[in-house]
Amino acid sequence: MPRVPIEYRDASAQVRAIFDDIKRTRQVDDVNNFWKYLAHDPVMLTRTWQSIKEIMAPGALDPLTKEMIYLAVSVTNGCNYCIASHTAAARKAGMTEAMFGEVMAVVGMANETNRLANGYRVPIDPAFK
Amino acid sequence: MPRVPIEYRDASAQVRAIFDDIKRTRQVDDVNNFWKYLAHDPVMLTRTWQSIKEIMAPGALDPLTKEMIYLAVSVTNGCNYCIASHTAAARKAGMTEAMFGEVMAVVGMANETNRLANGYRVPIDPAFK
Amino acid sequence: MPRVPIEYRDASAQVRAIFDDIKRTRQVDDVNNFWKYLAHDPVMLTRTWQSIKEIMAPGALDPLTKEMIYLAVSVTNGCNYCIASHTAAARKAGMTEAMFGEVMAVVGMANETNRLANGYRVPIDPAFK
Amino acid sequence: MPRVPIEYRDASAQVRAIFDDIKRTRQVDDVNNFWKYLAHDPVMLTRTWQSIKEIMAPGALDPLTKEMIYLAVSVTNGCNYCIASHTAAARKAGMTEAMFGEVMAVVGMANETNRLANGYRVPIDPAFK
Amino acid sequence: MPRVPIEYRDASAQVRAIFDDIKRTRQVDDVNNFWKYLAHDPVMLTRTWQSIKEIMAPGALDPLTKEMIYLAVSVTNGCNYCIASHTAAARKAGMTEAMFGEVMAVVGMANETNRLANGYRVPIDPAFK
Amino acid sequence: MPRVPIEYRDASAQVRAIFDDIKRTRQVDDVNNFWKYLAHDPVMLTRTWQSIKEIMAPGALDPLTKEMIYLAVSVTNGCNYCIASHTAAARKAGMTEAMFGEVMAVVGMANETNRLANGYRVPIDPAFK
Repeated sequence: MPRVPIEYRDASAQVRAIFDDIKRTRQVDDVNNFWKYLAHDPVMLTRTWQSIKEIMAPGALDPLTKEMIYLAVSVTNGCNYCIASHTAAARKAGMTEAMFGEVMAVVGMANETNRLANGYRVPIDPAFK
Repeated sequence: MPRVPIEYRDASAQVRAIFDDIKRTRQVDDVNNFWKYLAHDPVMLTRTWQSIKEIMAPGALDPLTKEMIYLAVSVTNGCNYCIASHTAAARKAGMTEAMFGEVMAVVGMANETNRLANGYRVPIDPAFK
Repeated sequence: MPRVPIEYRDASAQVRAIFDDIKRTRQVDDVNNFWKYLAHDPVMLTRTWQSIKEIMAPGALDPLTKEMIYLAVSVTNGCNYCIASHTAAARKAGMTEAMFGEVMAVVGMANETNRLANGYRVPIDPAFK
Repeated sequence: MPRVPIEYRDASAQVRAIFDDIKRTRQVDDVNNFWKYLAHDPVMLTRTWQSIKEIMAPGALDPLTKEMIYLAVSVTNGCNYCIASHTAAARKAGMTEAMFGEVMAVVGMANETNRLANGYRVPIDPAFK
Repeated sequence: MPRVPIEYRDASAQVRAIFDDIKRTRQVDDVNNFWKYLAHDPVMLTRTWQSIKEIMAPGALDPLTKEMIYLAVSVTNGCNYCIASHTAAARKAGMTEAMFGEVMAVVGMANETNRLANGYRVPIDPAFK
Repeated sequence: MPRVPIEYRDASAQVRAIFDDIKRTRQVDDVNNFWKYLAHDPVMLTRTWQSIKEIMAPGALDPLTKEMIYLAVSVTNGCNYCIASHTAAARKAGMTEAMFGEVMAVVGMANETNRLANGYRVPIDPAFK
């Protein structure tokens, strides 16, 4: 029997409190499927949301930069759900199509040169140690 | 017999021309080991440098943002050489220790939630399609 | 022309013998699509089944623990087919929804801290060498 | 200038409080290098420890099973620090050499069949949807 | 708003020139979706095509061997688009079903033994240094 | 207490028989560290050797092609032991430095375009389905 998303109307008080905080923080009308599935484990839902809320808040880096880094990791790992949701989140935070193209270019090149460094077994320069 | 780095004094004219362009573009006295190993294949050296030069130049994104994305990918892939060299490059471009900590936090969280999305088999929200 | 699954009725004697052994060992009426596709290469089908049969048999670890480890790897790699089939196999072996949630929590945290250890370039403690 | 581990004697009150909690929870005399490096970012140190403490506590799964899953993910990702530290942690939790061998066997086979499922483009069986 | 493929009739002169070169080089009537999506960023389209054209041309290795290596990497990374397109490209270059089976067998075994070497923490033999 | 390699003189009869078969098949005087570590688990040693022996034998693909594919996967996964040992094995099977450079070029490009296909969310062409 497959897992189904847990909608607000069917959620426990603990889950509703997290959903409410997500909606308030992100100023959205409903939460993404990601949260509706994590809601099957309220402890995980709570811990994951609190970590993300803390990490993605503005700090030394602005939210747009953080979302582009999130997208870069998701593309590297090939997580289709995450690519879709974080492309949307980065756009909402201000990523233009030109910025998206440059993120992709850097991600592609980094994935290429990571393997060239592996394959040529390049030793770390003393200056980088 | 292991591969050795190709130093400027031992390099062909084609390789020297690339080394010179790297040093001029990055305003450094010598090139990294990465380039000294790729120099075993001058065609690859040339193509890789020209691509990186084009990709890492300022555009819609500034060089610091690009270096942090490069670092995020390298950390995700576990490429030790690339982590060392791009941490150095990002610092040179202005990454503070506080920024480094936030890059790591986002990279860690993205790697975690990528797997939660995989494991819970979360379907893509219609709004993200 | 796309590859199609090889059904029992269309299979060679060698393939049927493996299918029969899978059904007997797992006490199922039919084999999964995975085996019906590997059947295009009977040598690979035979070798893969014999390895899995040996590895997944009860030993120092019970079948449920083995299935949860299999699932953890599949989630880390993002293999959708394997996530679906090994979630089903782990449930059949006794994985409850609470256990599933804890597997996911550990998998997520391990994927996160693997990257933090990479990014901070943490040296191995002498005690762990 | 390379990052160095932050020792207890040099740590802030916030970091010391976390180090104390790690030592108390795990009943160890000193914390691993991992924590001494994360201590450069006390907010990350705190969040990461609180998450790990919650996740690795006994629950529906026992601590040994959780440590073996942590090890399986670390081996799949090739994180050398994490492989070393979680092999030690799993042994402390009761993993015998025979159990280690079986974890490795499952991890190896899962990494193999993940790619066979990818390469043969095996569609998910209706029963697993 | 989702991205759409850019068809020849809607493409700029720069994009058309690349599409024409792809069609001429590969002797095909139309380009793959991959190129129609990269066309959103003509600079990336141009750089990527020129790199692939240079790399995949016959050299010390024949085109079939190169395509099978491309497929092996794509299967390891779990890139579904790339698995589909490079299986087709390898077949066009002469890959038989028997060759495909052997590529898969090597890819599967390499992914397995990579993890065994990680997990057993095997030190590099002096002869391989 | 760290694991140590098991040398022939200290090995059981079962392990010696496998070591003898490896030496005879590969015409070498001693086995690699990989086998000396797997020897801690004679069942795994036996299964892994028999699988590799079957897979790496000449078939529809020649041994050199198989070794280059093995190397391509190991470079993609960043397995340092495997990169070192399979570079040596590929050279022994006839890989020249020019061939090595082309393997690296294809591996680098495949790792790059795998991510571009992910990031641009390119749908599979009907012709490749």
